[in-house]
Amino acid sequence: YGKNTIKFLRLHREGKKHFVKEVEVCTHLRLTSAQEYLEGNNSLVIPTDTIKNTVLVLAKKNGIPTLEQFAIDICKYFMTTFCQVAYVKTYVQEVPWQRLHENGVPHVHSFICVPDGIRFCEAEQCRNGPLVVFAGIKDLKLMKTTQSGFEGFYKNEYTTLPERHDRILCGELFCKWSYGECKDFDFDCIWYTNKIRECILEAFAGPPDCGEYSPSYQKTVNSIQMLVLSKVSQVQVIEVILNNTFYNVVDMKNLGLTNDKEVLVPVETPYGSCACTLGRKKFLEA
Amino acid sequence: YGKNTIKFLRLHREGKKHFVKEVEVCTHLRLTSAQEYLEGNNSLVIPTDTIKNTVLVLAKKNGIPTLEQFAIDICKYFMTTFCQVAYVKTYVQEVPWQRLHENGVPHVHSFICVPDGIRFCEAEQCRNGPLVVFAGIKDLKLMKTTQSGFEGFYKNEYTTLPERHDRILCGELFCKWSYGECKDFDFDCIWYTNKIRECILEAFAGPPDCGEYSPSYQKTVNSIQMLVLSKVSQVQVIEVILNNTFYNVVDMKNLGLTNDKEVLVPVETPYGSCACTLGRKKFLEA
Amino acid sequence: YGKNTIKFLRLHREGKKHFVKEVEVCTHLRLTSAQEYLEGNNSLVIPTDTIKNTVLVLAKKNGIPTLEQFAIDICKYFMTTFCQVAYVKTYVQEVPWQRLHENGVPHVHSFICVPDGIRFCEAEQCRNGPLVVFAGIKDLKLMKTTQSGFEGFYKNEYTTLPERHDRILCGELFCKWSYGECKDFDFDCIWYTNKIRECILEAFAGPPDCGEYSPSYQKTVNSIQMLVLSKVSQVQVIEVILNNTFYNVVDMKNLGLTNDKEVLVPVETPYGSCACTLGRKKFLEA
Amino acid sequence: YGKNTIKFLRLHREGKKHFVKEVEVCTHLRLTSAQEYLEGNNSLVIPTDTIKNTVLVLAKKNGIPTLEQFAIDICKYFMTTFCQVAYVKTYVQEVPWQRLHENGVPHVHSFICVPDGIRFCEAEQCRNGPLVVFAGIKDLKLMKTTQSGFEGFYKNEYTTLPERHDRILCGELFCKWSYGECKDFDFDCIWYTNKIRECILEAFAGPPDCGEYSPSYQKTVNSIQMLVLSKVSQVQVIEVILNNTFYNVVDMKNLGLTNDKEVLVPVETPYGSCACTLGRKKFLEA
Repeated sequence: YGKNTIKFLRLHREGKKHFVKEVEVCTHLRLTSAQEYLEGNNSLVIPTDTIKNTVLVLAKKNGIPTLEQFAIDICKYFMTTFCQVAYVKTYVQEVPWQRLHENGVPHVHSFICVPDGIRFCEAEQCRNGPLVVFAGIKDLKLMKTTQSGFEGFYKNEYTTLPERHDRILCGELFCKWSYGECKDFDFDCIWYTNKIRECILEAFAGPPDCGEYSPSYQKTVNSIQMLVLSKVSQVQVIEVILNNTFYNVVDMKNLGLTNDKEVLVPVETPYGSCACTLGRKKFLEA
Repeated sequence: YGKNTIKFLRLHREGKKHFVKEVEVCTHLRLTSAQEYLEGNNSLVIPTDTIKNTVLVLAKKNGIPTLEQFAIDICKYFMTTFCQVAYVKTYVQEVPWQRLHENGVPHVHSFICVPDGIRFCEAEQCRNGPLVVFAGIKDLKLMKTTQSGFEGFYKNEYTTLPERHDRILCGELFCKWSYGECKDFDFDCIWYTNKIRECILEAFAGPPDCGEYSPSYQKTVNSIQMLVLSKVSQVQVIEVILNNTFYNVVDMKNLGLTNDKEVLVPVETPYGSCACTLGRKKFLEA
Repeated sequence: YGKNTIKFLRLHREGKKHFVKEVEVCTHLRLTSAQEYLEGNNSLVIPTDTIKNTVLVLAKKNGIPTLEQFAIDICKYFMTTFCQVAYVKTYVQEVPWQRLHENGVPHVHSFICVPDGIRFCEAEQCRNGPLVVFAGIKDLKLMKTTQSGFEGFYKNEYTTLPERHDRILCGELFCKWSYGECKDFDFDCIWYTNKIRECILEAFAGPPDCGEYSPSYQKTVNSIQMLVLSKVSQVQVIEVILNNTFYNVVDMKNLGLTNDKEVLVPVETPYGSCACTLGRKKFLEA
Repeated sequence: YGKNTIKFLRLHREGKKHFVKEVEVCTHLRLTSAQEYLEGNNSLVIPTDTIKNTVLVLAKKNGIPTLEQFAIDICKYFMTTFCQVAYVKTYVQEVPWQRLHENGVPHVHSFICVPDGIRFCEAEQCRNGPLVVFAGIKDLKLMKTTQSGFEGFYKNEYTTLPERHDRILCGELFCKWSYGECKDFDFDCIWYTNKIRECILEAFAGPPDCGEYSPSYQKTVNSIQMLVLSKVSQVQVIEVILNNTFYNVVDMKNLGLTNDKEVLVPVETPYGSCACTLGRKKFLEA
């Protein structure tokens, strides 16, 4: 049980310059006993309202140095404070506020919401177990208008899909990776120095002047995983899900026109989905 | 990988009387090899477009006798037809069309959408493993305006929640149960004869003339599980998630009025969530 | 300016039996002056927070006898209390809670949310003008699987739609009618006695044993309007919008199968929309 | 009647460099006669499927030079081609694809979706009337963390809002302006040269080093309108709607802490809304 979507804004001021961090937090607990389920005995139950208060208090006291550190702080607090807690998990997601700029000058206290990929993280711990930290990015919508195909696939009597060597590849990415057991990482440093987001974009798009051919969604997913694992040593395992939107070239023959992939219609349902989890030594596919 | 939200309507006619079953299907496969990820070799990949075609063909040929049987048919088809399939999972969800009635007379071909709980099911199979079937109901929003409280809970310095013995209990239920290894069940017969939906409502609400006191969301969740397990012998394990909306009694003192739980405001975020999985011999809590 | 989606529950008790009315209210005002816009002078501005408080206080004091009466009460309150108000409009929409029944017995305090059409109303008044009341139903999803066609339409070089005399008609209805200048109506009595919802369903579906042929969405919209106007004398003008979902018969020829309108796929975007407003003295707009 | 959300992508290639314009189009017509409503005579009805085909054909033939020009092309086509059309309106909205950059180098064919405000436009024409063009931006979420207050407002017995001279101002902007009767405008030139979007951001935020005090949402709305009207001579009338999210400073006294506007909770419902339309010759509505 737990509390979902605890939304709040943490405002930090340095003189006239303001810094905002708005987040949504979900914190879930499992208790060592189940008497509240079986007997209606609530004596060990920490109310979800108290969970919410605790999250707000920790934000007030510690601030949000990084999303990951904040998730760790919450897990540690619950595990060390309450002996009836057997397991704790905390998910933190950021509202993508960016500082406004006017003619290149950053504004001291004005922000705009730019949802081009949402950063999130997760920390979890079982009693007597390690504290494990995950991070990720979701709702990242990307498109390449060429250098994508799908050929040589398995065919049977229900196959009507033609082979294509030049199609649009468009999809929404969900990437989540594990930093393994929690060490004294500076998570924002890893994020920014290693340019994880840039890695993902680069692996998807290829070189700016010519791109790189993708023979399938699966291979694109794998390319993203390989590049992140090779560039960011702290990442242990990375899961990528690519939900793709198919773009159908409109057949205009009966309208008296030739359509050379100029007008395409997105097919939003049904959509294909391709997920893979890749680790350092072995790989796992889902 | 797979295809999500394959939506279609299966229309069945008996003379002038029409029967509709509109569903959303998600089918996911895992292959025995990963060469498409690693090498871009698609020769074993069954395109998600073929998956979609197959689902439509099976609907055409077999109809949808029950949601569960249809999910089983799809899993069996993929497992027996393609030796490269290591695992298959199919989820089927129903659009809640109900036959229109005029003055109590059922209409032969007109329907209304009544989304008061969505029926769904899931079937999955690993190669050389059993075919396992799940069924459930989701998006079921219920409320009781009394006979609910929350008292005697654990308190610490961040507890501000008052004890209550008369509050509104309102939430959205997700229930999913396992029928275990697939046998020759008549799934609609189990559903309708055992009145599973009615069980859930009854366990939530209690007797119509007085209700039954709920000391916590946890206990209500457990009551639902116990009643379903006791009434429906085919159910092996049942998972229930209750996402609750808190109703806050508006403090009207500074408006010069007494508010005896007459005007309440729903607090939609954050919301509490309580999940439990209960089986026949042992219980597991999540 | 104003306050949108003021959500609250009004609970009324008669002994052990409870009655709930949960609503969303939007109240908008226009002031006689614009000095707050031009000069930043707020002295006449009624804060939206006060608007919210006022709505809750009126709910506490008067209850919600009917949605329409509650909207009227709010408009009258603002118009008579504040001389700086030039115009007031209030929209009220109901959360569709229905009393639970167990084996036909109504439950004293348990309810289920059944969103098969949402009742709403609107009241508006200009200073020195009449108070006008509207009511309606929205999000009503209906389908008929035959007795619908579309033939004899205008054709040109960009017409690819075939003529059809047996198709599925499926859509979401929005109906809004005016009761004209506010009189001492018992709005629930009009609603229930005249069975407005049943009128709409009947005009859509036709007789239960055979239906009634619809030659176009337009004619179906008109049939609904004509029936409501003929049965409910208090309705002055009625607007109906029908947003339709096209169901495409899947071509299975290349899959080796004949599909006699048995498997159909809903096309959700783009969707057609057809709107018409019909009054008693014959004016017509689209 | 008409067709809504006609979604398509128009791809334009210049050698290896690709340009994408993905849009959603809604086109609505009113006919000179109403015989399809009254008599079920469809002979003048242009099917919504033909409307869709026409939009796609015009996109193929003309491309989308600007959103506005494309909307004008559609309106002109229907008005000149079909004498039974009495009125036509077309709405066009853009999917915010932006070209990817790698280390500052623009990618030839890869794009990312960045929904920080959606550009849209509208064109409409009555037979024998002028073609009028509107443009706008919506879903633009902005926040300033100081330089905002609300004081000196009207108070009565239901006022509980305290006066504030330092609060967070956060809201979603909808701006729509009229270019008046259609002339041979280069709409993208007006958009980019006059930096309309930058005007809106600047009027909202004030100077980057100190901001500008906003005494109310109303005044901020007016500032945006005044700046756009003063900077962009082609704009005749501008409507701005600001839907604000209130940020509530969490009271932490009973948690033993002082909260100096460091932790705030967004209140998403109910939300205030403030709308104003301002023209060149001073008319004002709310």
